[in-house]
Amino acid sequence: MNKNVAIVGSRGAVGKEMREILIQRKFPIGEIRFFGSSNSGENEISFGGKKYPVRQLTFSEKDFKGVDLVLSSPGASVSRKFIPYAVKAGAVVIDNSSAFRMDPQVPLVIPEINVSDLKQHRGIIANPNCSAVVLLMAITPLYRKNRIKRVICATYQSTSGAGAQAMKELEDQTRDWLEGKAISKKAFPHQIAFNLFSHDSPVSRDGANEEETKVIQESKKILHDNTIRFGITCVRVPVFRAHSQAIHLEFEKPMTPEEARKILSRSPGVQVVDDPEKNYFPMPIEASGGDHVLVGRIRKDPSSDTGLALFACGDQLRKGAALNAVQIAEELLKT
Amino acid sequence: MNKNVAIVGSRGAVGKEMREILIQRKFPIGEIRFFGSSNSGENEISFGGKKYPVRQLTFSEKDFKGVDLVLSSPGASVSRKFIPYAVKAGAVVIDNSSAFRMDPQVPLVIPEINVSDLKQHRGIIANPNCSAVVLLMAITPLYRKNRIKRVICATYQSTSGAGAQAMKELEDQTRDWLEGKAISKKAFPHQIAFNLFSHDSPVSRDGANEEETKVIQESKKILHDNTIRFGITCVRVPVFRAHSQAIHLEFEKPMTPEEARKILSRSPGVQVVDDPEKNYFPMPIEASGGDHVLVGRIRKDPSSDTGLALFACGDQLRKGAALNAVQIAEELLKT
Repeated sequence: MNKNVAIVGSRGAVGKEMREILIQRKFPIGEIRFFGSSNSGENEISFGGKKYPVRQLTFSEKDFKGVDLVLSSPGASVSRKFIPYAVKAGAVVIDNSSAFRMDPQVPLVIPEINVSDLKQHRGIIANPNCSAVVLLMAITPLYRKNRIKRVICATYQSTSGAGAQAMKELEDQTRDWLEGKAISKKAFPHQIAFNLFSHDSPVSRDGANEEETKVIQESKKILHDNTIRFGITCVRVPVFRAHSQAIHLEFEKPMTPEEARKILSRSPGVQVVDDPEKNYFPMPIEASGGDHVLVGRIRKDPSSDTGLALFACGDQLRKGAALNAVQIAEELLKT
Repeated sequence: MNKNVAIVGSRGAVGKEMREILIQRKFPIGEIRFFGSSNSGENEISFGGKKYPVRQLTFSEKDFKGVDLVLSSPGASVSRKFIPYAVKAGAVVIDNSSAFRMDPQVPLVIPEINVSDLKQHRGIIANPNCSAVVLLMAITPLYRKNRIKRVICATYQSTSGAGAQAMKELEDQTRDWLEGKAISKKAFPHQIAFNLFSHDSPVSRDGANEEETKVIQESKKILHDNTIRFGITCVRVPVFRAHSQAIHLEFEKPMTPEEARKILSRSPGVQVVDDPEKNYFPMPIEASGGDHVLVGRIRKDPSSDTGLALFACGDQLRKGAALNAVQIAEELLKT
């Protein structure tokens, strides 16, 4: 039952988590192969007590000869280029980039939500955008009981979503700022230390940035619902990892906060953190490193007769990326 | 025309701004008197090149003998106690606390929005909650052209809203965190460095925290509109000053982003910062220290046929507090 696994983008922030999660969850690995871009640091990776070289993609079938499963998290352009070769070589690819997510031939899967979509795969399975994962983990259990017509969501996105370099930039800028030095910018277009800004992805003609468009399109695909309406504002905040979201929902029929709390507390992958007396609700530092999407501040939204509001936090690198990918791989083992 | 002025809470974060803004705007001051609590630092305040003692309130009329105008920013409990004496002594009090804001006898004023409410004052004028000020500065010009039925707003609130100590706590915690030391908490119930949390005000039975309730109630009072519906989520972020807001609006009739941009660019106190090509929108570091509420990301909200979305930032200590108070004082000079 052991699988030969390759990780593409193995030294990135998500790749590092993929390695750790494979070990934590005792994924049945035969051989393992690591790929990385030429411009990242180390040439060796330690995995399960052994050292492995970091290979570079040649973009040919031989990269993946004998590989059963590829966990992939490079940029979308690299994914677009190497994945056809990996599939031809007989591997199944779980890709964390946006390259194939909206391809109608490619299932886009959150195992807790639409695991049955996996059946249709033809060698590629897409891992959704991290903000879409956090949002859908928090709202889908409610949606299944009482259709949600409209979602308004403002995000508080950590630097990890922009990769390991961006996390370092937050740390470096903060240090420089505190020492009164000039700050330098590379990963982000604006200062991130003690600041926040609209998500650093290109803005299209309709005014939405790419991140917002991904959340909307991918959520509709995962829910198989084109009528649900989304109003999303994506914002980058000076937090290392774990994305947070202020969510306002409009249901078909009213739902009480108690009902929502009960449903969410029984939902796999979700942890209710909701103690108004102690003013204790989901926080990114507590979601970081964990597997659950934390949901709290479950309350009536006074602006709608059928409204509820929530606050959610999820580790962008884990459930928002690497963990979800490994969970998909685990589902594939069952088939 | 010179006025004798007293500042209560003169060493706090807002009090300090009040002093600076009075000088910047050349407010016509005769005598000036500074009050502060016994437990804050310095005993003297420099103002316009002269030193003044910091007095303590005796909670009697004599504190305000000869004073025409009081700018007040202590806690609400202190305001409740001293203001009746100040009014009896013949002063007009502009109070930044929440003590009198919802009193039907007390005008709650943002000069750009409801200056005419000032006429009804009986010695006390309330300065609104900082989040309400930023929100209303951004949306009221649009509301006047096309009634807004529903507002969904998620805030990104800086530490300055919790006072000078809270700003220091963000700096101290950040430094300690970077040095690998344990962090200590005093001003906030949770870690603020590289973290965020639901606003640190008491949560009522309906699930709303006090800050959210203030924004809703005060906005309705300022707009004289009890039918407008608000869904607000208030969140504290690791930013020193200037509050940000992701705002989703539902109008009575559709409004184009171009129309909204035109209206806002002509609105006093508002500055449109909206360059999608450069991914350049309002940011707290750019709103800090300024007098304008920055508004951008003006776009269609795809979740509503009559929807628009905006992103706004305003300096919590200036327009959100001290500047608005001084602007009210300037309006009183005209009468």
